[in-house]
Amino acid sequence: MKKIYNVAIVGLGQIGSYLYKEISSKKKEIQNKTGKIVNIVAISAKNKNKKRIFKVNKKIFFSNPLKIINDKKIDILFECIGLSDGISKKIVEKAIKKKVHVITPNKALIAKHGEHLSDLAVKNKVNLEFEASVGGGIPILRTIKEGLATNSIYKVYGILNGTCNYILSEMENTGSSFKNALMKAQNLGYAEPGNPKLDLNGYDTLAKVKILSALAFNKKISKSKCMMEGIENIESKDFDMAEQLNLRIKLLGVTEMINNQLFERVHPCLVKKNTYIANVSGVMNAVILEGKPVGESVLQGEGAGPGPTSSALMSDFLSVLRGNIKFPFGLPNNVRKKVKIYDDKNYINSLYLRFEVKDKPGVLSQITKHLAKYKISIQRLIQIPNNTNKKASIIIITHSVKENNSKKCLKSIISNKNIIKKPVLLRLF
Amino acid sequence: MKKIYNVAIVGLGQIGSYLYKEISSKKKEIQNKTGKIVNIVAISAKNKNKKRIFKVNKKIFFSNPLKIINDKKIDILFECIGLSDGISKKIVEKAIKKKVHVITPNKALIAKHGEHLSDLAVKNKVNLEFEASVGGGIPILRTIKEGLATNSIYKVYGILNGTCNYILSEMENTGSSFKNALMKAQNLGYAEPGNPKLDLNGYDTLAKVKILSALAFNKKISKSKCMMEGIENIESKDFDMAEQLNLRIKLLGVTEMINNQLFERVHPCLVKKNTYIANVSGVMNAVILEGKPVGESVLQGEGAGPGPTSSALMSDFLSVLRGNIKFPFGLPNNVRKKVKIYDDKNYINSLYLRFEVKDKPGVLSQITKHLAKYKISIQRLIQIPNNTNKKASIIIITHSVKENNSKKCLKSIISNKNIIKKPVLLRLF
Repeated sequence: MKKIYNVAIVGLGQIGSYLYKEISSKKKEIQNKTGKIVNIVAISAKNKNKKRIFKVNKKIFFSNPLKIINDKKIDILFECIGLSDGISKKIVEKAIKKKVHVITPNKALIAKHGEHLSDLAVKNKVNLEFEASVGGGIPILRTIKEGLATNSIYKVYGILNGTCNYILSEMENTGSSFKNALMKAQNLGYAEPGNPKLDLNGYDTLAKVKILSALAFNKKISKSKCMMEGIENIESKDFDMAEQLNLRIKLLGVTEMINNQLFERVHPCLVKKNTYIANVSGVMNAVILEGKPVGESVLQGEGAGPGPTSSALMSDFLSVLRGNIKFPFGLPNNVRKKVKIYDDKNYINSLYLRFEVKDKPGVLSQITKHLAKYKISIQRLIQIPNNTNKKASIIIITHSVKENNSKKCLKSIISNKNIIKKPVLLRLF
Repeated sequence: MKKIYNVAIVGLGQIGSYLYKEISSKKKEIQNKTGKIVNIVAISAKNKNKKRIFKVNKKIFFSNPLKIINDKKIDILFECIGLSDGISKKIVEKAIKKKVHVITPNKALIAKHGEHLSDLAVKNKVNLEFEASVGGGIPILRTIKEGLATNSIYKVYGILNGTCNYILSEMENTGSSFKNALMKAQNLGYAEPGNPKLDLNGYDTLAKVKILSALAFNKKISKSKCMMEGIENIESKDFDMAEQLNLRIKLLGVTEMINNQLFERVHPCLVKKNTYIANVSGVMNAVILEGKPVGESVLQGEGAGPGPTSSALMSDFLSVLRGNIKFPFGLPNNVRKKVKIYDDKNYINSLYLRFEVKDKPGVLSQITKHLAKYKISIQRLIQIPNNTNKKASIIIITHSVKENNSKKCLKSIISNKNIIKKPVLLRLF
């Protein structure tokens, strides 16, 4: 059996650099646990001279990561570049074809190209591991594939984006505006300084949801579009209202099987304060699984940052070193079927709606009439005037309403000149 | 590579029977996930004719489980008999020596004989798997060994006994007495109908703590005695007091390394209501790990019952079928050193003390004087008279006090004739 493993790390941002230090400092422990000796023989990054938490050994530095696969004898590649396409996809493909095991935290890559890369890995008899792509330090994928193997899981949901959860917690606790909370998150390194859009609009969470669905339900990764809403429109007055209603606002990713059809969604939810999920605060992530026979399982942990992510990468690393060649999605790819998609127009749920309106006679009646037209019945209504600017907020909690009706209703109501801006819609969970 | 695996299940109580059904009904899924065909070729129980959830195939039934190892070609044995010694130990030893993989939910066996059996398993190159021994359906051992491999874990604590947690939740929510809550737990099948002592006095939790320590800290299982207190003395008035103080009572198992010394303990704790652990109710179990670089990780799930336990047994089963021969404790046994033990006399903590006293002049001053003698300083004191019987309860919250002092103090105070019964001591967490 092979004794010495050569390792390459491409991408030396926060995660790649932390990982480099982890591997370098834990060689002895790795050897104890796996019997294998590991050597980092190649590293690569855009900028050779950038200041990093470790001293770059220039002898093993490659400006072009693709050259590593050609020039060096590599056994395991860590892809820490990110993004679904471009160089990260290229190098992963190339490595697998050269029978190199690949470990990556890249959720965008796996959510988009996971099927193709998984086929390639199985064909070349190497591992493709991506524990770090979902839930940071929470070993959620391994738990589904191994710890809960043979359970029949029917629902998985949770808080999967630490940036959004931090911003929502901050807005709730301090009353800050979205903009200020985002700025604070960026200053603390929780949100991308340049373009945090993929975190905030729900895309990051959705990529994770797609990976979770594939694993939990033993299906192919779904390519279909699904409900995705971010947190950008939430304002502090929504938190005031939530507080009054004894609720909290959380961005949830949810995936479940309804009559054998897949229903994936990402959107902000109003959750009861005394529930478990409402009490996951700050940058924490949490995943809740419901299955048989295990019942409800909860996993919570730090969802982002180089420490937790490295923890997940290292667990993949040890798994590969122990020689466990495994199907990337826990099952042969031909057994994992395409999944039918649930038509989200049929989804029925209670809603929280906030309208910002001109404070003049008849406006409320216009709104309630409009809602009635779409068969949206009102459970609770609160109007808060803002006398200084002759505006008012109207908050409505609806009875259960069909997604299709609420969508149509909100779409057509925007043309009403008394409604000042796009209404805020939050779903009750 | 071996394709067909012969399986034996010894012990057909709730868990063994449920497992039998799970394996029988999931052969196809097991084959998909592992490529292996499994056959149950032998079963054993005390009583052949007892009514079970499946029809016993008498052709594969053995009255004497030890005969299975001699007479049948077995690859994997499930030991579901229970207890640390006697037949369960004998058959596990015998099986391992015959190069049969062993899977067991038996925490008493592993906590007591884990080192010996692990040596035996490594020597015979078979697996000894015991995921189901801790935390029911929570894949906590696999998470430590694999999902968090190479993390440096320094503390693990949690609610590890569903029976106790159910009783405490019930007493809190309904105001029932300990006796009534226990009876209800027994009626619902959560507590042993005959002798629930090992659950209630903390022994069951302690066995789990010992297994967790060995895995989390990469040390040998400690044989040393440690702090173990159960929930038998807690009364509904303690819940009333906890409520007033915005606290909740939980039986916690805790293990941590303090200056490289192991400190294991099991006792009821007062926890703040707004903490995570305070909100784990009913039969749920939860484990919290603190480590580097992962930070804090939480796992929660159903802690008992045949469903969750089978989920854990099946995860071990698939791991064995995938051919992952692993060190039972994640490391070669010779690397796992004996651990030094922390002297719990030095433990410093705030205490909740409840004295039941005769309501007559001077009693309170006797108690406070006695406490002062042992350098126990009082943070808060509440005296509640019971005028109907001329008794009173005195509840004291102390400042931090050394374990040694509080022990001596309570030991000597019992001789005071005005104190009617053994004082209740709960630790603030």
